[in-house]
Amino acid sequence: MSVVASVSDKKGKDPSIQPLVDLMSEGMEAVNRLILSKAGSNVEMIPEIARHLISSGGKRLRPMLTLALAEMFGYRGEGHVTLAASVEFMHTATLLHDDVVDESDMRRGKLAARKLWGNQASVLVGDYLLGQAFKMMVDVGSLEALRILSEASAVIAEGEVLQLGAAQNVETTEAQYMQVIEAKTAALFAAAAEVGPVISNADAAMQQAARRYGMDLGLAFQLVDDALDYGGSSADLGKDIGDDFREGKITLPVILAIARGSDADRAFWKRCLEAHEIGDGDLDGAIERLRQTDALADTILRARTFGQSALRALEPLPAGPIRDALAEAVEFCIARVH
Amino acid sequence: MSVVASVSDKKGKDPSIQPLVDLMSEGMEAVNRLILSKAGSNVEMIPEIARHLISSGGKRLRPMLTLALAEMFGYRGEGHVTLAASVEFMHTATLLHDDVVDESDMRRGKLAARKLWGNQASVLVGDYLLGQAFKMMVDVGSLEALRILSEASAVIAEGEVLQLGAAQNVETTEAQYMQVIEAKTAALFAAAAEVGPVISNADAAMQQAARRYGMDLGLAFQLVDDALDYGGSSADLGKDIGDDFREGKITLPVILAIARGSDADRAFWKRCLEAHEIGDGDLDGAIERLRQTDALADTILRARTFGQSALRALEPLPAGPIRDALAEAVEFCIARVH
Repeated sequence: MSVVASVSDKKGKDPSIQPLVDLMSEGMEAVNRLILSKAGSNVEMIPEIARHLISSGGKRLRPMLTLALAEMFGYRGEGHVTLAASVEFMHTATLLHDDVVDESDMRRGKLAARKLWGNQASVLVGDYLLGQAFKMMVDVGSLEALRILSEASAVIAEGEVLQLGAAQNVETTEAQYMQVIEAKTAALFAAAAEVGPVISNADAAMQQAARRYGMDLGLAFQLVDDALDYGGSSADLGKDIGDDFREGKITLPVILAIARGSDADRAFWKRCLEAHEIGDGDLDGAIERLRQTDALADTILRARTFGQSALRALEPLPAGPIRDALAEAVEFCIARVH
Repeated sequence: MSVVASVSDKKGKDPSIQPLVDLMSEGMEAVNRLILSKAGSNVEMIPEIARHLISSGGKRLRPMLTLALAEMFGYRGEGHVTLAASVEFMHTATLLHDDVVDESDMRRGKLAARKLWGNQASVLVGDYLLGQAFKMMVDVGSLEALRILSEASAVIAEGEVLQLGAAQNVETTEAQYMQVIEAKTAALFAAAAEVGPVISNADAAMQQAARRYGMDLGLAFQLVDDALDYGGSSADLGKDIGDDFREGKITLPVILAIARGSDADRAFWKRCLEAHEIGDGDLDGAIERLRQTDALADTILRARTFGQSALRALEPLPAGPIRDALAEAVEFCIARVH
């Protein structure tokens, strides 16, 4: 049976991340232990900040991809655990630097590290975690995995710089937006998945399929995230509705609403997102405009398209409970929006 | 003949970095070409900022160490050029992040990147250069070189966090200061030198000697730098006298002056460096206090001690023009202070 199904239009029980979590629970416990031990340092502030971030949760989707795509090919050893932890460190470093760049106050429902320890410490502890991530990758000893993850590291930063240029500019195009999310989010999902077959010595076609799956899942994930910022449950995300709006981020829902709105609508978005003149009721006004133009629905539609592509990418991979769980993870990421 | 000589008390001509520059000129041209090509990106701001930093000069001492310590062992190939460029990228990334953390306005006599492009771009372009640095190291394919340089990357960040904790605290001890400069400066000198014998397949004793040389040279270099901040020619350094003083940095000259001064002196340093209440004449007052307590002279004396140790570390390495040039580079770093 094909793993491709209509994404998130299944009847019956809601799709869940739980099967993947259950299958990877042993490996993820090892990842969490490694993360805590490698976040240690004689320099007091480092483990403090690292533990703050690490204990603040998040689903650890990226390291789970690394474990799952290695175990799927019967990987034996500890290398996948080490690579998974280094993927999470890369992600955590990015979050620390992102919050500084975006001047964010909150992260996953807690005060952002930069509000607690300052921008300076956030920059430097991010650098430290990135250094530790590379050290761990070197421990694993796969030059190909190192190549994939160091490439992702450069691409993520490039995407962030691109986003900075696009930030608070209502002229940003859909193509520019897609380029940004591919670099800043999907590239790490892709790399996290790709290194699984690589360290398992699976063949190049498997490596490419895993990469495609991670990339498309990452794109779907970010599109849904950007839609959720204007609606949906904030408890799931640990982020409040309207964060992107208040920070002047130009995401796909906004790009679609501007393209489809009137000149007066455009002036509204310009005032809120470029000039940061946001008054009472403006967030409601933004959400209303997104609804009128079908911008949220069409953002989700695009996420579904990438979700379908992620499911197709799974087809050549070995059938079994891991593949089924990876397919359900795609459905779950998209179903978050209901 | 031993390469150990009394550092910088030679009669006759001044010690110079020129012999090392001349010997490495061909390799450094290749390094510079590689740096410019790898600093490229479709994202406009990246090459702009990278070129600003790269063209603003500096002596490129670190990549020269990598080239010299590889060529000394007859290295054939391009790997040493690639590693040298990645060392310079690591250094440049550190400078970008440092300027953000220190809120510096100037770097090598030009406006700091953060003043021209903003803190956000400086953080992200630093991340990009670090990612590129790791990609280049992976291209060389030496896991041992990767281990050494990724370790340095984590240690540098750790040192910066430590410095942040010590910053603007006149209780900082000499031991804490030494720990900071070993991590934030000397670790990269050590790694840059160590990877030379490593990729040349020289034996472990050579690798250790190169590392020791780099470490001690780095310590001497930073001690002299910290002394120069309170006197000497600013044209040489592209930094103005009193930068550290205005930023509240607690360096060895200040630590010695506080330890040897009166309670009134201590109150003076506390006011200037902790409370940042600096008025006209305070920099002169600081320099006068450093002179009265022999703090600058003793800082230089410590630099000389590390310089001697760097020269001793060179002894087991192959004799010849490269070793002579590396010895003279030590003398040059210390002679900057006269």
